[in-house]
Amino acid sequence: MSETAPNAPTVGIVMGSDSDWPVMQDAATALDEFGISYEAEVVSAHRMPAEMLDYGRQAADRGLRVIIAGAGGAAHLPGMLASVTTLPVVGVPVPLKHLDGMDSLLSIVQMPAGVPVATVAVGASRNAGLLAVRTLAAQDPELRSRMADFQAELNNQAQAKGERLRR
Amino acid sequence: MSETAPNAPTVGIVMGSDSDWPVMQDAATALDEFGISYEAEVVSAHRMPAEMLDYGRQAADRGLRVIIAGAGGAAHLPGMLASVTTLPVVGVPVPLKHLDGMDSLLSIVQMPAGVPVATVAVGASRNAGLLAVRTLAAQDPELRSRMADFQAELNNQAQAKGERLRR
Amino acid sequence: MSETAPNAPTVGIVMGSDSDWPVMQDAATALDEFGISYEAEVVSAHRMPAEMLDYGRQAADRGLRVIIAGAGGAAHLPGMLASVTTLPVVGVPVPLKHLDGMDSLLSIVQMPAGVPVATVAVGASRNAGLLAVRTLAAQDPELRSRMADFQAELNNQAQAKGERLRR
Amino acid sequence: MSETAPNAPTVGIVMGSDSDWPVMQDAATALDEFGISYEAEVVSAHRMPAEMLDYGRQAADRGLRVIIAGAGGAAHLPGMLASVTTLPVVGVPVPLKHLDGMDSLLSIVQMPAGVPVATVAVGASRNAGLLAVRTLAAQDPELRSRMADFQAELNNQAQAKGERLRR
Amino acid sequence: MSETAPNAPTVGIVMGSDSDWPVMQDAATALDEFGISYEAEVVSAHRMPAEMLDYGRQAADRGLRVIIAGAGGAAHLPGMLASVTTLPVVGVPVPLKHLDGMDSLLSIVQMPAGVPVATVAVGASRNAGLLAVRTLAAQDPELRSRMADFQAELNNQAQAKGERLRR
Amino acid sequence: MSETAPNAPTVGIVMGSDSDWPVMQDAATALDEFGISYEAEVVSAHRMPAEMLDYGRQAADRGLRVIIAGAGGAAHLPGMLASVTTLPVVGVPVPLKHLDGMDSLLSIVQMPAGVPVATVAVGASRNAGLLAVRTLAAQDPELRSRMADFQAELNNQAQAKGERLRR
Amino acid sequence: MSETAPNAPTVGIVMGSDSDWPVMQDAATALDEFGISYEAEVVSAHRMPAEMLDYGRQAADRGLRVIIAGAGGAAHLPGMLASVTTLPVVGVPVPLKHLDGMDSLLSIVQMPAGVPVATVAVGASRNAGLLAVRTLAAQDPELRSRMADFQAELNNQAQAKGERLRR
Amino acid sequence: MSETAPNAPTVGIVMGSDSDWPVMQDAATALDEFGISYEAEVVSAHRMPAEMLDYGRQAADRGLRVIIAGAGGAAHLPGMLASVTTLPVVGVPVPLKHLDGMDSLLSIVQMPAGVPVATVAVGASRNAGLLAVRTLAAQDPELRSRMADFQAELNNQAQAKGERLRR
Repeated sequence: MSETAPNAPTVGIVMGSDSDWPVMQDAATALDEFGISYEAEVVSAHRMPAEMLDYGRQAADRGLRVIIAGAGGAAHLPGMLASVTTLPVVGVPVPLKHLDGMDSLLSIVQMPAGVPVATVAVGASRNAGLLAVRTLAAQDPELRSRMADFQAELNNQAQAKGERLRR
Repeated sequence: MSETAPNAPTVGIVMGSDSDWPVMQDAATALDEFGISYEAEVVSAHRMPAEMLDYGRQAADRGLRVIIAGAGGAAHLPGMLASVTTLPVVGVPVPLKHLDGMDSLLSIVQMPAGVPVATVAVGASRNAGLLAVRTLAAQDPELRSRMADFQAELNNQAQAKGERLRR
Repeated sequence: MSETAPNAPTVGIVMGSDSDWPVMQDAATALDEFGISYEAEVVSAHRMPAEMLDYGRQAADRGLRVIIAGAGGAAHLPGMLASVTTLPVVGVPVPLKHLDGMDSLLSIVQMPAGVPVATVAVGASRNAGLLAVRTLAAQDPELRSRMADFQAELNNQAQAKGERLRR
Repeated sequence: MSETAPNAPTVGIVMGSDSDWPVMQDAATALDEFGISYEAEVVSAHRMPAEMLDYGRQAADRGLRVIIAGAGGAAHLPGMLASVTTLPVVGVPVPLKHLDGMDSLLSIVQMPAGVPVATVAVGASRNAGLLAVRTLAAQDPELRSRMADFQAELNNQAQAKGERLRR
Repeated sequence: MSETAPNAPTVGIVMGSDSDWPVMQDAATALDEFGISYEAEVVSAHRMPAEMLDYGRQAADRGLRVIIAGAGGAAHLPGMLASVTTLPVVGVPVPLKHLDGMDSLLSIVQMPAGVPVATVAVGASRNAGLLAVRTLAAQDPELRSRMADFQAELNNQAQAKGERLRR
Repeated sequence: MSETAPNAPTVGIVMGSDSDWPVMQDAATALDEFGISYEAEVVSAHRMPAEMLDYGRQAADRGLRVIIAGAGGAAHLPGMLASVTTLPVVGVPVPLKHLDGMDSLLSIVQMPAGVPVATVAVGASRNAGLLAVRTLAAQDPELRSRMADFQAELNNQAQAKGERLRR
Repeated sequence: MSETAPNAPTVGIVMGSDSDWPVMQDAATALDEFGISYEAEVVSAHRMPAEMLDYGRQAADRGLRVIIAGAGGAAHLPGMLASVTTLPVVGVPVPLKHLDGMDSLLSIVQMPAGVPVATVAVGASRNAGLLAVRTLAAQDPELRSRMADFQAELNNQAQAKGERLRR
Repeated sequence: MSETAPNAPTVGIVMGSDSDWPVMQDAATALDEFGISYEAEVVSAHRMPAEMLDYGRQAADRGLRVIIAGAGGAAHLPGMLASVTTLPVVGVPVPLKHLDGMDSLLSIVQMPAGVPVATVAVGASRNAGLLAVRTLAAQDPELRSRMADFQAELNNQAQAKGERLRR
């Protein structure tokens, strides 16, 4: 985790517990599809508050360009990271056993003026990964081109599904 | 704000912005009624994250025994303080312009296992003050006695209201 | 259940039915981890109203310092106990078959001014136990020290999870 | 219709605070329209728990046949009264400043098996009065006849409104 | 207690489909426990509107004293019956596959002024039966006495559960 | 209101009370814009149940082709009409003082299989009128052409708003 | 899919993915029961936006008279189709893994003034099919007659269920 | 930073109607504070579907790097734009008269896999602007530095508020 490392990952995927990994790994898969390097870490807002703030503070200098943070319930991780980094933070509301992720969603999206979190749907870590790609692509024409290809492929798949369904 | 000060306040009332004070001052009034010393501070989780964690870490050593934290929307202050102090933290969901405090409530109460926040009703800072008194009274028979008097007075007032209403 | 007994338990864990015990036993486990003595009782607000009020009224004199009360649906037990004791009452919203605990949460947390209940997350009896420990620790430096150790251990476990996850 | 007192009221209208009277007085008006005697009292579950249980326990012997109870927020009054009386209890969810009465509704209607509360709409104390009339009319043919007249008059009024609106 | 038929049932239990019977039969069981006669019928507001209104209109004359109506989703049966009978109507919100009964609850409880429905908890048909018993007991001292015995037995059972749980 | 009248209206706009007219008149305005004849009536499901069913049963024979029904709270009017007519029924959830129309929406939209109601947004009676127009236009090319013109005009207005806003 | 084809289907059933077919096929079954021709297609608002708009724009000219569109989550398909067709669009909220279809319902029903979607219950594609039949029947007396037969058969089935249940 | 036009704006702020401008202009103010060029347009998903898709398709080539889209109710604009652009789209849920923005929030955030929208809080267009800045800053060290200054200023302001409040 050296700073300004030549091979530093571009996206940080963090979550409050390794039990969130089954939800969050779809973000990693999406980044893999675009060849974006990433790291995955447990950074708990409530069990590792100091390390969590350090992670956020050092993220930009370590070469990260986007942080994806998943959390459930009183989900404070995305918002707290956003308060100590200048990078865009994508928040993934992880659904817990009760309340179907509505608590996670509101805890992440309803941030006060000054500190935004880019929130995606409940459990939608794949979209979090894709949002990170779009963020990086905003100033990378080649990556935008690959996102356009990806969207064309989505279109192809949907059309193929339609072929099978049509009646 | 020296440490282990002889006149250190017993309860810390903190909030994310001075705009929360009209809601939070009822906590102060309740503490005044029981002669409990307190301090009131703006400690924003999202705008002052480092100071916020420092506040929580130093609270017990400075002589505080209970922290009352009010916050609205994606309300992270009570839970983040609870993660860095051993003191009981009372959370007050402050209602914002939209969603009627439901976001604030869920963001405060739905804490993960290991880090509890003692949550009161939406906007109920007076009850936050009274919960702090009960917490202090748990090991202070004289204060429990005054809480019993307070409850008797609530009973008297309710009975008097009944007299006026009765028909 | 004699009064002022030398070995009287410090925390009372009560619930409306023994069917709540699978949820509520996590509170007992948390207290065991800190060596806090407790008792567990069925005290139903709706099926044992007189005994319920007696339980609350006698709690402080019997040596209890905190009451943890779990209830589901129209969950009246925590609030009714709070109305007849000077002790802090921790409320655990027990989720029932329908509505996912939202009814239990609102029935417990939305108490009127004058009678607070320290509410934790839906089904979060472990946190209720830990909140009782913090309440007792507020004036017990040795117990605060053990809570600090507990928090350090939470941190260790989270870091270890991170080690296993890291990639 | 009383068993004991010659002039005992037939319906008890109770509420947690006199501030609920503006909502609850519609129940009284409805009873007046049917010539049903009633009493109105402040009986707070949380500020007068002993008196509240006494009220419920003595209600039937005092000649009451139905209890109408209004409460807001963590609304425990209707359910607690139902636990200590054999009479039907009609619950009126009083809306508070936040959450629009949803907390009041769930706290009243979601009673556990064994102890029902006959719940009406948020703020619908007029319907609570009319439900008390129907309850009394269940075994009073003359009162049923007047309820039929009342329903015919509702029909007439609705038709008259239709005349004015028709286009 | 009938006016017309010598063996007419006292309570009508109706529902929109026989698929509601697994939920509604608990109402019948409760009535059996108190020796109250009842009938059970499918009376669908939306599939049998004419028969449904006839059922309501004739209920009182056939000797019924209370109607218990269960329905799910856009649950119109209890309210429509209440509009054509002078009897008290108890509404049971039957939970469907989605929305967990919240739609059923609001469709039943939020009746307009003039036409009340005595609503019980989601799926709580046992309490609907017990509310019918209380309604009949309002003017039947012997039945009130049996309800008091029932409540004493609830207390005994709760105490016995407490014995098994106590630790 | 003769049957098969030569000048019979094409759309029936009905509501439970004339107090709903301020919401419902937008449906009439929309129909006026397309030159569709209509009638407006108070037809209360709960205060005029017999007349309400008659209205529904006779609607098609009287020449109506679409019914627009507005109702609030436990909103039974649209669904009950749908149960006795073969015509399409458009339901408008009228928001009441509490719960912001959510009860009205669920009471109207969540109809059981067999009896659909075409539900529009809370308070959206203008869209109810436009949906009636589209229903009539389904087999009327000239009316479809006017709907296309209407949509082009919506487009023009939106573009004009954009002109004023653009910066 | 030729335009103005002699055997063109009358109803278009579209959905965002073939995974919605298990929910949506009930619409097809309902149309089959009435002998209404239909087509079923995957037309994804988000993966096939251009094709989706084309589908809507050409629908009327291809001979379709009603479009049934099912979608889940941020369900944009019904509303977007409604914006480019003059035909009535029936929206079916498909429930996803989280939030029980409430997001789908609100995303479909809460359309702005000018562009209505005829929304049915969560998952209620059978009712969507029946609403399409009613729409077609609005100006087809023979089809209205068959809908009346269908309703009579619903009544028969409900009565038969009642026979089996009656006790 | 544009690729084509020398003076092309970097951020597009779009909304469904000019009535959304009072909410959306805070996004413009935030961009002004960072010297980011922007354009503001009315682009209605439902009233200008073709222009809306064109706007999205051309956005990247016109030099835009981020799109901010505000919409209310069945809010389809952000998601539809995201389906036809490779740029990151920030969605602002605009609260309407009813439902307090919950419909807007769910309609925007609950996007299906493949097409993410970066959602901010209800009405939080200032944060949408700041999220656009962070997105641009992800690969612009100088802009990150200004964001760090901005955050330091937020901290200063919060501390100053604390000074005034402290007691």
